[in-house]
Amino acid sequence: MPQISFNGIFPPIPTPFVDGEVAYDKLASNIEKWRHTGLKGLVVMGSNGEYVYLSAEEKRKLVEKTVELTPDPMLVIAGTGCESTKETIELTRDCADRGAHAALVVTPHYYSGKMNEAAMLAYFTAVADQSPIPILLYNVPKFTQVNMTFRLVSQLSRHPNIVGIKDSTGNVSQLGEFANNVAADFKLLVGTAGALFGGLALGCAGGVLALANVAPELCVKIYDYVKQGDYEAAKKLQLKMIPVNQAVTATYGVPGLKTAMDMLGYFGGDPRPPLLPSSEKEKSEIREILIEAELLT
Amino acid sequence: MPQISFNGIFPPIPTPFVDGEVAYDKLASNIEKWRHTGLKGLVVMGSNGEYVYLSAEEKRKLVEKTVELTPDPMLVIAGTGCESTKETIELTRDCADRGAHAALVVTPHYYSGKMNEAAMLAYFTAVADQSPIPILLYNVPKFTQVNMTFRLVSQLSRHPNIVGIKDSTGNVSQLGEFANNVAADFKLLVGTAGALFGGLALGCAGGVLALANVAPELCVKIYDYVKQGDYEAAKKLQLKMIPVNQAVTATYGVPGLKTAMDMLGYFGGDPRPPLLPSSEKEKSEIREILIEAELLT
Amino acid sequence: MPQISFNGIFPPIPTPFVDGEVAYDKLASNIEKWRHTGLKGLVVMGSNGEYVYLSAEEKRKLVEKTVELTPDPMLVIAGTGCESTKETIELTRDCADRGAHAALVVTPHYYSGKMNEAAMLAYFTAVADQSPIPILLYNVPKFTQVNMTFRLVSQLSRHPNIVGIKDSTGNVSQLGEFANNVAADFKLLVGTAGALFGGLALGCAGGVLALANVAPELCVKIYDYVKQGDYEAAKKLQLKMIPVNQAVTATYGVPGLKTAMDMLGYFGGDPRPPLLPSSEKEKSEIREILIEAELLT
Amino acid sequence: MPQISFNGIFPPIPTPFVDGEVAYDKLASNIEKWRHTGLKGLVVMGSNGEYVYLSAEEKRKLVEKTVELTPDPMLVIAGTGCESTKETIELTRDCADRGAHAALVVTPHYYSGKMNEAAMLAYFTAVADQSPIPILLYNVPKFTQVNMTFRLVSQLSRHPNIVGIKDSTGNVSQLGEFANNVAADFKLLVGTAGALFGGLALGCAGGVLALANVAPELCVKIYDYVKQGDYEAAKKLQLKMIPVNQAVTATYGVPGLKTAMDMLGYFGGDPRPPLLPSSEKEKSEIREILIEAELLT
Repeated sequence: MPQISFNGIFPPIPTPFVDGEVAYDKLASNIEKWRHTGLKGLVVMGSNGEYVYLSAEEKRKLVEKTVELTPDPMLVIAGTGCESTKETIELTRDCADRGAHAALVVTPHYYSGKMNEAAMLAYFTAVADQSPIPILLYNVPKFTQVNMTFRLVSQLSRHPNIVGIKDSTGNVSQLGEFANNVAADFKLLVGTAGALFGGLALGCAGGVLALANVAPELCVKIYDYVKQGDYEAAKKLQLKMIPVNQAVTATYGVPGLKTAMDMLGYFGGDPRPPLLPSSEKEKSEIREILIEAELLT
Repeated sequence: MPQISFNGIFPPIPTPFVDGEVAYDKLASNIEKWRHTGLKGLVVMGSNGEYVYLSAEEKRKLVEKTVELTPDPMLVIAGTGCESTKETIELTRDCADRGAHAALVVTPHYYSGKMNEAAMLAYFTAVADQSPIPILLYNVPKFTQVNMTFRLVSQLSRHPNIVGIKDSTGNVSQLGEFANNVAADFKLLVGTAGALFGGLALGCAGGVLALANVAPELCVKIYDYVKQGDYEAAKKLQLKMIPVNQAVTATYGVPGLKTAMDMLGYFGGDPRPPLLPSSEKEKSEIREILIEAELLT
Repeated sequence: MPQISFNGIFPPIPTPFVDGEVAYDKLASNIEKWRHTGLKGLVVMGSNGEYVYLSAEEKRKLVEKTVELTPDPMLVIAGTGCESTKETIELTRDCADRGAHAALVVTPHYYSGKMNEAAMLAYFTAVADQSPIPILLYNVPKFTQVNMTFRLVSQLSRHPNIVGIKDSTGNVSQLGEFANNVAADFKLLVGTAGALFGGLALGCAGGVLALANVAPELCVKIYDYVKQGDYEAAKKLQLKMIPVNQAVTATYGVPGLKTAMDMLGYFGGDPRPPLLPSSEKEKSEIREILIEAELLT
Repeated sequence: MPQISFNGIFPPIPTPFVDGEVAYDKLASNIEKWRHTGLKGLVVMGSNGEYVYLSAEEKRKLVEKTVELTPDPMLVIAGTGCESTKETIELTRDCADRGAHAALVVTPHYYSGKMNEAAMLAYFTAVADQSPIPILLYNVPKFTQVNMTFRLVSQLSRHPNIVGIKDSTGNVSQLGEFANNVAADFKLLVGTAGALFGGLALGCAGGVLALANVAPELCVKIYDYVKQGDYEAAKKLQLKMIPVNQAVTATYGVPGLKTAMDMLGYFGGDPRPPLLPSSEKEKSEIREILIEAELLT
């Protein structure tokens, strides 16, 4: 297997729905725009992809289509984490069959009180052992109430088929602890754009960023600036992007991200229920934020 | 449709697995034991049923089999809550087709920050509108990080097809607020045995209790005592059951519940991974607690 | 020392301020009203007494005055918990010197992550060892982020000078665990009126209730009904009081409690800054709730 | 008043106790060591100073002595936040009288649910209005459960006597939001060493760091590296310091910080009860971490 590089910026792409069904033509037009922005690849079926709202069948088809629509050399990373070890393995294999280059596997979390280090070690080891494609861990306590310790990440980083982690805590101290303890070629991916500059400066390999859906070029620029050692430029752009990132993540969530996409020439559309679409008031606040950040005029 | 009564005690039954697959013979033998205990019915695919670890297909088959195996006049309530409105409606209908008498629908929760009153009102209304069988709300913040307000529950209680709520907070003040505000024939079901006596004394109709899997007769006794006005006897039994309930819920979780079942003549077995089976140390602690409570000698 | 009985209802009284200073005449007039209501005694300098806003000197004077103003046989319990063991012991002794019958000692909590069982055991043991008056533990995680385990409470209940606990969690299962494990004559006091009936039914000795400041007779009635075995009457009154209790605790806090007192013939007045007084909108909502509960016409 | 610069590194110094009393000779010897390390000044009576365990009188004397012992041009910043507006103002004035250059004022927090933007705005404005010395805000949700919003910080930053904020969240995205919104000369101080490099790279003016008590030179080095634009060197040192910082903050707390001080030639000593001193096991773990970081051989 040729070595894949995960260095760079990836958007966790929203799943476009029209009349409640996945709209592949909208997906195609979005990808057509993203392909010219310097993105390293796409993450399909992450939290921003409303993966919890997709049926098992829809997930398989969505990966297949995304792979089809994504031009070389862009990577397609599929979010394949389910609650059970069994379903996660099956979905990971099926996504591999459909051409996904890697799988992003969220920590199981319904029984969060029982998802201790031993349970998670067994889980990720089993998944990685049986996956034909490399595994990226996905740590997102905001949604899962589970936080991976550096001890656990360190141990998992030694597995030959676990190649990195998306950490969405925005906690640079935690990223630093991971950096200190993981295997040499294990990749740390910043999981929220507010910590992109801070994480890259500490040595992270890239980012999987909601913001990269709506401002891919600027996220890539922050990445490039840091790699070139132009920290001052990176810092300026980082500060400018923080309000937009807040809007499309914590404040307005997936519906807000979709609203921003609609405003910026992508197809966003409505989320699936029970998520409610942005209200008119929210839309107008989002517009203000995009104008303030000079993404919109 | 003849009126169904939800007054009484229901266990949220664990799903028995042998070699990782659902073991219907074990389910049958467990039901054979439960049927003689005074239970009003069974809840299948609740949190104790590891519903998040069952595939869409397994869920349908499990409901079908449970209905088949459960003798009249016991009720079968199916846990049909999925994250998306669409999947929940489909599963609820399919469970109705397979003979479930009612559906227990958990609050959607992955995007817990967005599951506000408006989103939940729309969700439960859509599900109830399209369900052929009555809906019971399921409020379990311990697993979902979402707590239903009394305003929301009050409003939903007016829907002709929403007939009750299982509240697992153990907060009797909240149960009282619900009692003060819901429609007249809306049923409050206590969702954790530690609050059974307190909840029944406040007027709750019954309970859906993990403890009822392993000590069904005693849970039914507490219910009967309160209905007969023998509060002193109810209190004594309640106090005796609290440590056992703690063990099979908060402390040892679903694996502990299964361990206790194995010790008490039911089939418990192992949970599905990533849940780990009880360790030997945990087993011995559970045994102590069961002996202390005179459930085991 | 004659045995003191803590059975009954106690209000944790607000500290009256006029122009920002403690107003003893207002305290006197409030006590004059409370004395005819069946209350067992008063708790001064609890959370509702804004104890954290009183200087060391003010605390001593407030206890002295409260003792002076409170007629036999009403008890005065002084909240004497400080963060340090040393200050708590000093304040407890000084309150004893000024005539307090007992001390209510909150768990220390600034370094909540370090307040484990060992630290709390040492703390309460040291305080009880050196206190001339009996100690009541005060468990209020809502304010302290620390929850006392039943193991800790059980151990402390064996100390000859620790006579009870005020538990403000409203968790009847936890009260039951305490009941199962504490020494025979250790008193459990329900710390929030929403769980009063539930707690008393489980065998609690009484309650320390914000609600008892504004509806003392009704709280005493619930207590009497349960002691007389009239659970049905207790239940009805409990349900009626829940909305008022919510208002004067969780929803509107100490400022709301003071507002309700002003409306019901007591002196409430403004809290000390930084607590803000109730807004006009909040006042009108509180009025509605009091009318609804027939406390106000 | 000459303009004071808060650029640089400040340790929030532990209060040395011998036999439970403040030991000024130990304070003197610690300051004698710190003065040669490049620190910009000292923060006395911060969270690491166990300020909640000091009496009103002890606080005044401690500030007086610290000012006496601290050589020019080092600054002395006094932690003066109390729960009430009144006490905070009094303590701030008294500390100013005793020579403190500035006051660090923590958010009031016992009634955390009521400490909304309006309450905090009124609080900090009143304190700043009446303080003879500049005010630094202190945001430490880990201890207070209160997080200051960027809107609040932005508004307060316009007050002529509020000059900066210590933010201990370690959240660089939040620091960035503050940076985007505060007045031009308002200073952002990183409040935890794990985010020092990340915060400085985003433009923060300095740091108030527990770690600076035990590794002052290295913290100053990180600061200098960033100011000189040597991000690579800053990053390396940051990564090396993260485990030590974790040890003396989250993992072992104030007792662990004092243990590390004892091991590194400072006087640490025991914390005041109820904080327990580090156990032998903890001491040996701390020693390992210091050796690993080459602070100890």
